[in-house]
Amino acid sequence: MTDHRIWTAALVVIGDEILSGRTQDRNIAQIATWLNVQGIRLSEVRVVPDVEERIVEAVNALRTQNDYLFTTGGIGPTHDDITVDAVAKALGRPVIIHPEARGMLERYYETRGGLNEGRLRMARVPDGAELIINRVSGAPGIKIENLFLLAGVPHITAGMLDGLTGELEGGRPLVSVTIGGMVPESEVAELLRETERMNDGVAIGSYPFFKEGRVGANFVVRSEDAEQAQSVANLLAASLESAGYPMVPGGI
Amino acid sequence: MTDHRIWTAALVVIGDEILSGRTQDRNIAQIATWLNVQGIRLSEVRVVPDVEERIVEAVNALRTQNDYLFTTGGIGPTHDDITVDAVAKALGRPVIIHPEARGMLERYYETRGGLNEGRLRMARVPDGAELIINRVSGAPGIKIENLFLLAGVPHITAGMLDGLTGELEGGRPLVSVTIGGMVPESEVAELLRETERMNDGVAIGSYPFFKEGRVGANFVVRSEDAEQAQSVANLLAASLESAGYPMVPGGI
Repeated sequence: MTDHRIWTAALVVIGDEILSGRTQDRNIAQIATWLNVQGIRLSEVRVVPDVEERIVEAVNALRTQNDYLFTTGGIGPTHDDITVDAVAKALGRPVIIHPEARGMLERYYETRGGLNEGRLRMARVPDGAELIINRVSGAPGIKIENLFLLAGVPHITAGMLDGLTGELEGGRPLVSVTIGGMVPESEVAELLRETERMNDGVAIGSYPFFKEGRVGANFVVRSEDAEQAQSVANLLAASLESAGYPMVPGGI
Repeated sequence: MTDHRIWTAALVVIGDEILSGRTQDRNIAQIATWLNVQGIRLSEVRVVPDVEERIVEAVNALRTQNDYLFTTGGIGPTHDDITVDAVAKALGRPVIIHPEARGMLERYYETRGGLNEGRLRMARVPDGAELIINRVSGAPGIKIENLFLLAGVPHITAGMLDGLTGELEGGRPLVSVTIGGMVPESEVAELLRETERMNDGVAIGSYPFFKEGRVGANFVVRSEDAEQAQSVANLLAASLESAGYPMVPGGI
């Protein structure tokens, strides 16, 4: 099933606000979901603080191991926005002012008090970079080599992802089929294991939950072959139903 | 301000369901917030798939660099729960059945169909481990060396954290004071930078938002000295107000 190329991406989430617990991250799930549709697997995420050497280390560890590397956060106008400098350092490139980005900012701030030092920071890019245009807000993301530097504010991140949709080469999307039921996973662990073992190219995840005082679980069957994912999910549902557990397609 | 010891922890989130985007992680923020209260800084998070070598690699990279290492996920009864095996391998220890955990499971399942192979998996620990008792559900977490293996289901994770509260040695908690206002961060970037530079031991984060068509920002002043955090936040608020931006204590 996997004799073709699998495309992978990693994500570096940059921000003290995530590590302090102040902000609930939304970008991991958002980017993971978007990547799946592009046929790219998210293989690892690292969350690091606003410290240059820590960003450089994470970027260098992950960029060579993956087809693509995304970062979120740290591309705004303030002193704690150091992603561009860190990535430039990781890539051994100088930081320059991108003329097109500067023009965009000049036009945007023309009626909003004009460019200042902080705002001009948002036109800084590693030398050789292209801009990722987004329609949600004026600020562009940055593409350099196999890196994509995105904003940290989730709806702006979404606008930048939108600008990238269909632009990245990927493989076959991983398809998930979910079934759920009021079944304690510990009663059916052997059945899950055997079903996965007998079906090459399929991974089955088991996700327990508690609802109205009873335990249940959702089982997610993943495969790059949509038909296989569906048929294995049907088989698993039939086995569980014959063992006395009514199952709900799509999960609970 | 930081001539005393700073205690750090890292977190390895284990789970294909986070990397596929199926599940929105809640444990990073939950554990970060809990650690702050214990006087411990969350210094890095890695999210890795349910693949033994990837877990081993992340655990070994982070456990020696930090005072504590937490993991979430992969300690249930099913075939995709491989955290115990991976951690045992990382530490060079065999996996054993913990007698106390086995007893707990025997009692719990006495009226629920009895122990089976899957359920007995939850009594497996790296040799030398202690249990982390939690009152929310029967299943214990696992403590071994400086590692804490917690459940992935957030309310069970919370129960295990509750069982650990006050047990870990830490330093002074990092105190945050937030102020917010309808101020574009790009207009005040220089003021933020200078305020941080002038106050040793203080870090200032700037977090923009959009509300009813207008831009605003929250500024978070962090310090291990609660009085300093408050006085710098007051100073910053006064400076911003004198520049014409009314500020809201506590943020927006």
